Amino acid sequence: MSLAHANRGVVYQGPGVVQVDAIDFPKLEMNKRLCQHGVILKVVTTNICGSDQHMVRGRTTAEQGLVLGHEITGEIIECGRDVEFLNVGDLVSVPFNIACGRCRNCKEGRTGICLNVNPARPGAAYGYVDMGGWVGGQAEYVMVPYADFNLLKFPDRDQGLEKIKDLTLLSDILPTGYHGCVTAGVGPGSIVYIAGAGPVGLAAAASAKLLGAACVIVGDMIQERLDQARSFGCETIDLRQEGEMADKVEQITGVREVDAFVDCVGFEAHGCGCNHGNEAPATVLNSAMELTRAGGQIGIPGLYVTDDPGAVDEAARVGALSMRFGLGWAKSHSFHTGQCPVMSYHRQLMQAILFDKIEIAFHI
Amino acid sequence: MSLAHANRGVVYQGPGVVQVDAIDFPKLEMNKRLCQHGVILKVVTTNICGSDQHMVRGRTTAEQGLVLGHEITGEIIECGRDVEFLNVGDLVSVPFNIACGRCRNCKEGRTGICLNVNPARPGAAYGYVDMGGWVGGQAEYVMVPYADFNLLKFPDRDQGLEKIKDLTLLSDILPTGYHGCVTAGVGPGSIVYIAGAGPVGLAAAASAKLLGAACVIVGDMIQERLDQARSFGCETIDLRQEGEMADKVEQITGVREVDAFVDCVGFEAHGCGCNHGNEAPATVLNSAMELTRAGGQIGIPGLYVTDDPGAVDEAARVGALSMRFGLGWAKSHSFHTGQCPVMSYHRQLMQAILFDKIEIAFHI
Amino acid sequence: MSLAHANRGVVYQGPGVVQVDAIDFPKLEMNKRLCQHGVILKVVTTNICGSDQHMVRGRTTAEQGLVLGHEITGEIIECGRDVEFLNVGDLVSVPFNIACGRCRNCKEGRTGICLNVNPARPGAAYGYVDMGGWVGGQAEYVMVPYADFNLLKFPDRDQGLEKIKDLTLLSDILPTGYHGCVTAGVGPGSIVYIAGAGPVGLAAAASAKLLGAACVIVGDMIQERLDQARSFGCETIDLRQEGEMADKVEQITGVREVDAFVDCVGFEAHGCGCNHGNEAPATVLNSAMELTRAGGQIGIPGLYVTDDPGAVDEAARVGALSMRFGLGWAKSHSFHTGQCPVMSYHRQLMQAILFDKIEIAFHI
Amino acid sequence: MSLAHANRGVVYQGPGVVQVDAIDFPKLEMNKRLCQHGVILKVVTTNICGSDQHMVRGRTTAEQGLVLGHEITGEIIECGRDVEFLNVGDLVSVPFNIACGRCRNCKEGRTGICLNVNPARPGAAYGYVDMGGWVGGQAEYVMVPYADFNLLKFPDRDQGLEKIKDLTLLSDILPTGYHGCVTAGVGPGSIVYIAGAGPVGLAAAASAKLLGAACVIVGDMIQERLDQARSFGCETIDLRQEGEMADKVEQITGVREVDAFVDCVGFEAHGCGCNHGNEAPATVLNSAMELTRAGGQIGIPGLYVTDDPGAVDEAARVGALSMRFGLGWAKSHSFHTGQCPVMSYHRQLMQAILFDKIEIAFHI
Repeated sequence: MSLAHANRGVVYQGPGVVQVDAIDFPKLEMNKRLCQHGVILKVVTTNICGSDQHMVRGRTTAEQGLVLGHEITGEIIECGRDVEFLNVGDLVSVPFNIACGRCRNCKEGRTGICLNVNPARPGAAYGYVDMGGWVGGQAEYVMVPYADFNLLKFPDRDQGLEKIKDLTLLSDILPTGYHGCVTAGVGPGSIVYIAGAGPVGLAAAASAKLLGAACVIVGDMIQERLDQARSFGCETIDLRQEGEMADKVEQITGVREVDAFVDCVGFEAHGCGCNHGNEAPATVLNSAMELTRAGGQIGIPGLYVTDDPGAVDEAARVGALSMRFGLGWAKSHSFHTGQCPVMSYHRQLMQAILFDKIEIAFHI
Repeated sequence: MSLAHANRGVVYQGPGVVQVDAIDFPKLEMNKRLCQHGVILKVVTTNICGSDQHMVRGRTTAEQGLVLGHEITGEIIECGRDVEFLNVGDLVSVPFNIACGRCRNCKEGRTGICLNVNPARPGAAYGYVDMGGWVGGQAEYVMVPYADFNLLKFPDRDQGLEKIKDLTLLSDILPTGYHGCVTAGVGPGSIVYIAGAGPVGLAAAASAKLLGAACVIVGDMIQERLDQARSFGCETIDLRQEGEMADKVEQITGVREVDAFVDCVGFEAHGCGCNHGNEAPATVLNSAMELTRAGGQIGIPGLYVTDDPGAVDEAARVGALSMRFGLGWAKSHSFHTGQCPVMSYHRQLMQAILFDKIEIAFHI
Repeated sequence: MSLAHANRGVVYQGPGVVQVDAIDFPKLEMNKRLCQHGVILKVVTTNICGSDQHMVRGRTTAEQGLVLGHEITGEIIECGRDVEFLNVGDLVSVPFNIACGRCRNCKEGRTGICLNVNPARPGAAYGYVDMGGWVGGQAEYVMVPYADFNLLKFPDRDQGLEKIKDLTLLSDILPTGYHGCVTAGVGPGSIVYIAGAGPVGLAAAASAKLLGAACVIVGDMIQERLDQARSFGCETIDLRQEGEMADKVEQITGVREVDAFVDCVGFEAHGCGCNHGNEAPATVLNSAMELTRAGGQIGIPGLYVTDDPGAVDEAARVGALSMRFGLGWAKSHSFHTGQCPVMSYHRQLMQAILFDKIEIAFHI
Repeated sequence: MSLAHANRGVVYQGPGVVQVDAIDFPKLEMNKRLCQHGVILKVVTTNICGSDQHMVRGRTTAEQGLVLGHEITGEIIECGRDVEFLNVGDLVSVPFNIACGRCRNCKEGRTGICLNVNPARPGAAYGYVDMGGWVGGQAEYVMVPYADFNLLKFPDRDQGLEKIKDLTLLSDILPTGYHGCVTAGVGPGSIVYIAGAGPVGLAAAASAKLLGAACVIVGDMIQERLDQARSFGCETIDLRQEGEMADKVEQITGVREVDAFVDCVGFEAHGCGCNHGNEAPATVLNSAMELTRAGGQIGIPGLYVTDDPGAVDEAARVGALSMRFGLGWAKSHSFHTGQCPVMSYHRQLMQAILFDKIEIAFHI
């Protein structure tokens, strides 16, 4: 194998074990499906996502040998012959959702549930269990299909490299947090509660500020995360401390409820206060219904799964949660779920970064 | 008591028992709150709602003496001094939601969750447990507060009386079914599933047709209801029969899923197929997630409650349901709940009736 | 030339003259731009559009030799190598707008103003002056680029052929009329005025009915067109007769204004009443502002041009019209212009046809 | 007259002349129409609007004796007997649009075109020609009708007085500029052009920033205004200098067009460049169509009138402008006009002020 064709990637070996291994150099095909609409990227940056950890912790059916990584920014080193609007040397952001750009859902902007890239179900991603078998990008090189459709080219290469720490977050975390805020109805003047101050939660908090929110309250149980949220002007609630959420919100804002709620935790939620430590998969959703004003919207970028082999009980094992849905109904809530369709947001967020309206790398 | 002040109403006596009793003639006040913004109506028509039955069956905390009835059409016989745009003799439809027209929610069109008409929580209705204590309209006379805001005047009295069987459904059932369709995203070309063929389900089916749906499929377990749905051009699924829902939908439409799903059943749902007969409060919601295409919306006009003293288990007793939320999340579903804000729809639906675009009395 | 490669098309020869000529058999390229994303269609049906007439009348800069035809339905006889989801033998509808499916506008669903298919300006069409130089489809064979993105496949070939007279209208007229209604805010209960009862006007009228409008009023000066509109339940106003529009609308509806206005005439408008016969390019727009209720929307699918060599005056020659914009402003009107993005609507409208919800061929 | 009933106001005396005069103390009625739904305010702050100047310059039919002032913030000193949710002592912002809260338009949030407060046409304002005859608030005391509906109460009186210079702008200028941005589709990442750097233009610029715009470009001919715009981070274009707008925009942003355009000038526009000095009422609208990208939206908070006695020509005298509408049509533009419905925005913008997200008094 010539040097030009060497490749290395982060490979899942089994619960708790990953390893950088030599892997195949990408080709413009996937499982014998020709991908002349694709490009090969030299990876410039890649990130580790909370959902990677989920696989690594062994709570999925991920198989040994999976190359991880769905957050990718790179430089094009080869274009398939059907690529028309991109060139070798372009610096590009790769949405984590793989989308064909040709199905009904893609045409409607629902690139998170593309119908043509995963035989098992709508939606696909790089390096991810049950998401279509595409090779991940925690690697030196990776293939991106439907490149003209999927990729976001940075307008200036030098400027792109200079802001690469911010721009790398366009592939997943920043749009995902932003999507949570948009679907929760956040806008100028909103009082917003963000559940969870991990990277997506902090990205949601920064997004809420970009969207003009009046007050962004972030709840978590980890001091470092709370400190981080405070560092860019968020209010925080320490969930390790006892007490009613409504009381805490009132102390901050003067009212006992929030306009919008963004669940950036998902199914691995733990109870707060006295019973923290125990997994309680519906706890954030139930808090959302308690804390959100009547008529409010609940954005749910946090992942809920159809099957969870490591769940606390039989119900949760098939994704069934005990939701106090009647409370939400009484308050006319709406609930917005699913993978973020990154393409719906990445261009605008790139502009926000390039024009210095958000310093997302600093925030998360 | 002079004849002018005689009044009679349907009064709840306890589980299973209602009775027409002499009741007070309405005043322009409620619990010592002056209602000069209100009018007194001579009731022309009123309907019995499924949720009335819920109270009568004793599954709520309704107290003896409650005057029932929240679906009211009437003629104005007296106007409070702050009423400016209505007159004695006007024939009007009364939205079941009581709304002040002055709070944040009302200003945003969310009249189902008005903040000023129920000390216990947002939202109120006539003759309804926990909905603010307003006297119901299954009576000869009833008081309607904030009349200029709430009431819909029929443009021509004679025409109104001629179409009264249709127009009477503007106070609740028709807008409620329509709201379910709107929040489910029904529009021209949609394939829609309506769960439940009671009055609201049939109104939803008729609404879906008005909205231009290509195919309206109604599911129920009662033959008469299914026949009724077929009578105006709906497809039907008999839930007493075994078999996969997706198979049945495919036989009708050629595809195994629907674009939009409207839950017109609510928390008193029963399992379908082999286990019908048992109450299974989350069964419709779980079917919705199975049957609705990725990216689809789920409209939920069917009632879910915060407390259900007659529930099958402890969880359902506090409104907690076992929802397979992970499935909905995987399909990027959104869920839209709550009382229909009748005012958002009643004027347009009145026009549809007056111009003969919907024959709703015939349909339900 | 072998028989397989024979082709014939309708060719513009100069003002007032078109002719069926032998033309080149289409290739998967356009002006040396490779189109392996394209297919070659055997044309099954094609229609003549009002805008074709505009070119034929010599009011554009169309050059001799232009092959006309942008309303195309056909059968695929050859697929480029980058076509992945279509096959030879598929029966398909071609949106008149050519769109790449890869630019910012296409990704936002604005396929009428694609950035990659016309070097002169956003937006392209087949067989049309200034719209990118693509060969038209009033021919036996035609090439369609970006086929996976652009084409709408009919689910069943036999059913498609059976309903071909309706389905042929999906390429332009029906979606264009429908777009006018959507942008004018037409919905259940609306009172709508459609200016012009040519094919697009009649398609708009039929669309308004599909969208649930309570009353559809169509205005024109030609008796046959008015009769046609009446034949499927529209009200009509004969613009040859003197009188105030508001009076005529009041006679029909009881009110002196309409909720929504759709301009299906465009810049070749003529004055109504006493001065009919003279071209008056802003007359429909000015009527719109007079007749539409405060807060109403004005949908403008009728074509307005940037340059009109045959215009009545110097201003109109560069597309400048004398609009009474202050009147629209006083009524908070919004104005919605531009080519219909066919792809936004054709799937739903196909469903409406296939499920017998609209009989468009019968209507126009 | 007792001291308690003294009142003074700014009274229009004729072209170019206003004077502070003794005027009647307000009553809870207007032209014999009882206003027990109203309150009497002691005016705390009031502003002079550009449209006041329009009247004072004599370009309207305003009559001698008109008390000016539609931008009002005040303290309630008397409540009509039908006011239910406000109290003496409340500090409130008054939307400049008077609205009944009971008509179809108010119920739809279109408070700028209320049907019940101006016999001449939809929409009313305080102290304004042709806007219903309501007495203005550049006075010590003023009456506000439908107070429960119209007024925005500041949650804390002391905080309100502390931020009064910002909060005073909630009655008109800030929401008006914001409305221009919202209707132009401004959001995170947008490149926005604001035509005119008067108070509304600067408020629009500040609003665009609050809405997350990436780049806000303000054009004007007056140095102080341009300097003011630069002081809070806007880019500027000096319209006194020759040159293509597209060139200037490209120098700032790298692209030759903008995503969104807000016309904060209106009908008193002047040509830019060489012909500045001459009034050219359509010049901003025509620039909008040139400069805005295909698919962009044009927000038009700047006033266009139905009649302009002082216009440059006969056409403009009746509000007719020579618009190059064909250009907008070719680019699929939409145009959004009318008075800002202040109530749609003032609560959110108040929150933005109270939580220090916008320092609007400093900006304009």
